[in-house]
Amino acid sequence: MSWPVIDTYEEVDGQLAVGGIPAQLLAERVGTTPFFAYDRAAVTRRVAAVRAALPDRIHLKYAVKANPMPALLQHLSGLVDGFDVASAGELRHALDTPMPAARMSFAGPGKTTAELAQAVAAGVLIELESENELARARGVAARLGVRARVALRVNPDFAVRGSGMRLGGGPQQFGIDAERVPGVLAGLTAAPELDFEGFHVFAGSQNLRAESICEAQRATVDLVLGLAQAAPVPVRYLNLGGGFGIPYARKDEPLDLGPIGENLHKLIEQQVRTRLPEAHVVIELGRYLVGEAGVYITRVVDRKESRGKTYLVVDGGMHHQLAASGNFGQTIRRNFPIAVASRPTAEDATDAPEKVTVVGCLCTPLDLLGDDVELPRAGIGDLIAVFQAGAYGLTASPTAFLGHPPPPEVLV
Amino acid sequence: MSWPVIDTYEEVDGQLAVGGIPAQLLAERVGTTPFFAYDRAAVTRRVAAVRAALPDRIHLKYAVKANPMPALLQHLSGLVDGFDVASAGELRHALDTPMPAARMSFAGPGKTTAELAQAVAAGVLIELESENELARARGVAARLGVRARVALRVNPDFAVRGSGMRLGGGPQQFGIDAERVPGVLAGLTAAPELDFEGFHVFAGSQNLRAESICEAQRATVDLVLGLAQAAPVPVRYLNLGGGFGIPYARKDEPLDLGPIGENLHKLIEQQVRTRLPEAHVVIELGRYLVGEAGVYITRVVDRKESRGKTYLVVDGGMHHQLAASGNFGQTIRRNFPIAVASRPTAEDATDAPEKVTVVGCLCTPLDLLGDDVELPRAGIGDLIAVFQAGAYGLTASPTAFLGHPPPPEVLV
Repeated sequence: MSWPVIDTYEEVDGQLAVGGIPAQLLAERVGTTPFFAYDRAAVTRRVAAVRAALPDRIHLKYAVKANPMPALLQHLSGLVDGFDVASAGELRHALDTPMPAARMSFAGPGKTTAELAQAVAAGVLIELESENELARARGVAARLGVRARVALRVNPDFAVRGSGMRLGGGPQQFGIDAERVPGVLAGLTAAPELDFEGFHVFAGSQNLRAESICEAQRATVDLVLGLAQAAPVPVRYLNLGGGFGIPYARKDEPLDLGPIGENLHKLIEQQVRTRLPEAHVVIELGRYLVGEAGVYITRVVDRKESRGKTYLVVDGGMHHQLAASGNFGQTIRRNFPIAVASRPTAEDATDAPEKVTVVGCLCTPLDLLGDDVELPRAGIGDLIAVFQAGAYGLTASPTAFLGHPPPPEVLV
Repeated sequence: MSWPVIDTYEEVDGQLAVGGIPAQLLAERVGTTPFFAYDRAAVTRRVAAVRAALPDRIHLKYAVKANPMPALLQHLSGLVDGFDVASAGELRHALDTPMPAARMSFAGPGKTTAELAQAVAAGVLIELESENELARARGVAARLGVRARVALRVNPDFAVRGSGMRLGGGPQQFGIDAERVPGVLAGLTAAPELDFEGFHVFAGSQNLRAESICEAQRATVDLVLGLAQAAPVPVRYLNLGGGFGIPYARKDEPLDLGPIGENLHKLIEQQVRTRLPEAHVVIELGRYLVGEAGVYITRVVDRKESRGKTYLVVDGGMHHQLAASGNFGQTIRRNFPIAVASRPTAEDATDAPEKVTVVGCLCTPLDLLGDDVELPRAGIGDLIAVFQAGAYGLTASPTAFLGHPPPPEVLV
């Protein structure tokens, strides 16, 4: 038996192991199924791999939105250089870690004035998404008597090819259009309440093509070098975003970090170092750091045949892992990697794979975790693992749907 | 100004009113935005309309999964004849109402043995989805020394044309294939732990075509009349499902209940009454009873222009109303009905509509509530209403996504 995501997980005692603990024992330790298990060592290894591939001068930031589990944040606070939060709720968990607030940023459209006040009070860098937000940040800073640390989020005039999601180029709710930024910068000299640090440009996410990411980084540096000429003070912060994707479907090839590292090295040495000597270059990653380190484990409750098809009905489902059901922003549903995690207990268990459809326990046909997948024969009581569950899993799912209890998350 | 769903909501003081309370006052009373407001009178009216259209003998059941808000369940317990639950969590809230447990059913694949025990202990009718579930229900009943009330959920050999979702026909995780039901019924005589009451057949949901629903009801009655011949006792329960849809997109025509009532009348008088004289005919509706009675209200936090497009950024979003963002099982995104709920406060407010894109506060391009919609000019502080939010709204959304607080729900 082998797991589809072989680099991350090992087999112990004929079972999938997370953090060295075989799945059945882990399920007993958790005390209930379904649950999410995140592999502490896998996160550590992934951060180390990114650091090894990227230039030393890169500031590596974790985008908390990918997975805000408090224990995971505590672990990551010792590994990365900063956190990016997308709400006051995420900020609260981030501030509970040893990570200094000075190394945190707050991005996202629709920040409320109350959220801006929390960010200013905490001393977090605010990535401003609009002129109005800038005006409100000034107002908050004046009221609190504290300068607000700000960067401008820029909506670039280009998009990234091959991104799973586009967040830049054309009209956008994100950031300030690049062509309006010089005007905004000019106004900053009359805004002593704001401490301007630099720029954030983020053009797309979940990209598996290194060359597209490199191209976006080059275009971003070009754009920022131009904008920086209108800045009232030297640029200290240059957030290039992230967008590093992970493979979800069988045909997906993992991202090659090598060319990205070389590209960043060149950009820093040939352009940033000379023209923006005070700038910290930031790469902000969420999914890429934690996505593969998480697995969703659920137990088979029923095994049934219906008109030639075999169904495994599990005690989990789309209410915990919406993306795996294909109902979270996907236009075409593709199976996430899936495996039998326990040593199969079916009386006639063999290693000969069979075609089964794995469905969740919800009373809706949307609740599909694996459609016509090949698995070793599994029966009631066996554990099924859905991989790539470390990012945008539990928090991106409708946990209250149909009234089942929320699943535990464990970091092992 | 007029609301797109004019039958349900009225205008008071130039604003959208829910339960007679204008939106701005309601937002003050709730104390925060965003929130869900359900109109008590609208639910009452809708149940009355269904009762008026359907034959007196129909037992009208509410499918709790559509909206399990406790206060709403309390209200509905005085209006409908029964509740259907899809989990032990829903069962708990249902049992907190005055509705007798004897008039509740529990359906859904993947019921755990613990859930079956709760249902048997409560005296709820279990709609069995598989042979294995039947065996486990027997085991539970034997252990508790209480007979388990059961019905068989049948996977029919037909599908319903025009359903938003198909739950019957072909291979399914739902129910027992029709052709296997006679064998299962034969086995019931040797299962004294089970009190067999009848059948549940549910072929599809969210259907706006009355003729398709009538056709499914006729085919269901035909199917059950055949199956009933193999039943060990007279059939007392005949759950025809529901599937009544509500309009979401501009082009959708509301469902015409007239033909459905006539069809049911004929089926009951000409077939059920004579051939299954002890059978209660059940129609089970969720979305149809509550969907139009709910509205999601969110406040404009930012108004921005980007390359020729105007964006209203609101303090809510897809984390509360996933279906309205087009990311919950839809293949093509269509705008839900949307309106400015408050009296617009923008200085240059006029009644001349403008084209705007309404986006949520999440840092993802998926968070889209209204794409290029025509609205009266609205500014920061104004309230936006997204309609058809009474069913599969809050509980079908990833509320924890990006760490914002959960929105209140109020019944007014």
